[in-house]
Amino acid sequence: MPGAIEFFFDFSSPYGFVASTLIDQIAERHGREIEWRPFLIGAVYKEHGGVPLEHPLKRDYAIKDFLRTGRFNGLTDMQLPANFPASPVPPSRVFYWIEGQDKAKAAEFAKAAYRKYWIDGRDTADPLVAVGVAQGLGYAPEDVMAGAQDDAVKGRLRQETGDAMARGVFGSPYIIVDEEPFWGGDRLAHLDRWLETGGF
Amino acid sequence: MPGAIEFFFDFSSPYGFVASTLIDQIAERHGREIEWRPFLIGAVYKEHGGVPLEHPLKRDYAIKDFLRTGRFNGLTDMQLPANFPASPVPPSRVFYWIEGQDKAKAAEFAKAAYRKYWIDGRDTADPLVAVGVAQGLGYAPEDVMAGAQDDAVKGRLRQETGDAMARGVFGSPYIIVDEEPFWGGDRLAHLDRWLETGGF
Repeated sequence: MPGAIEFFFDFSSPYGFVASTLIDQIAERHGREIEWRPFLIGAVYKEHGGVPLEHPLKRDYAIKDFLRTGRFNGLTDMQLPANFPASPVPPSRVFYWIEGQDKAKAAEFAKAAYRKYWIDGRDTADPLVAVGVAQGLGYAPEDVMAGAQDDAVKGRLRQETGDAMARGVFGSPYIIVDEEPFWGGDRLAHLDRWLETGGF
Repeated sequence: MPGAIEFFFDFSSPYGFVASTLIDQIAERHGREIEWRPFLIGAVYKEHGGVPLEHPLKRDYAIKDFLRTGRFNGLTDMQLPANFPASPVPPSRVFYWIEGQDKAKAAEFAKAAYRKYWIDGRDTADPLVAVGVAQGLGYAPEDVMAGAQDDAVKGRLRQETGDAMARGVFGSPYIIVDEEPFWGGDRLAHLDRWLETGGF
């Protein structure tokens, strides 16, 4: 069986969101599973010394490009959330709590939490909002809240972030398949052809 | 008559090179002229404080991505030049000297100088190599050499770089059409649709 598509993303990442709406289709076309791997991009910036969107000019362009990229991909109602960039910690913890029980549900949660933030403009950095997304998938809020605060879940997120960095991940989204890395949502066409041709 | 596609690029830029092989086709499809605008990306980094490819991890990925992006676009013989990143000053000056006489020839020179660097691996930062590219287009080497050292040409390159920055250009390639900016070769599909639809 061919290896999974490892999909590393940060919940505050606009291009991660756009890619989350496209990756299923690519995986299905090539008979691959997806490993959804939320991590904390802030840890990368801390280690690498990089600061995203440091210059106002670049920030203005970036915000225009976020939404234009969404529209280009059919997400005509994508908007810049008021609290951008929001902490990705609460939804990431909820993700790993759900994943401990049901991987498919965790993937559904990832997509729904992204939409809640980038389409509905809700503050997913608010634990109650992240918990509400899980509730929409059938989980009892009190279970999710307790689960997301569990030390094992907190440790899991730290470990996944460290593992991602050890794999060389430095941006979001970052995709690895058969050890080939693809950084950025604008590399999905490359990924698609890579899977089609076995490498080029 | 619709406005031109302003194509800002630095001669050391790999994505600028790839875009230079694709932009004619897009312009022709939509009946637009192209304004070829070489500038010095180093001046942007100096003002913005950004340092490209600062982290080894990112540099390794970037070099892989340069060539994969080339292959993705049919440039199977694109290679990393030994002296990457080379100074873009000599070919930029030759460009503006030629442009003072013949805009179409200047565009041809831009494409040829890019190929000389990214396909043939020649050091276009060596004035003799840049002059040789112009010679291939029918110019006498001694005229090109003298022209590229003319104060007016040197001033023109400084002015074009300043103008580009004043327009908000912060990367290469950077395209502006009808005041809409597109940064990066991976936004050519967005540009194409923008021209097709009049904006989205």
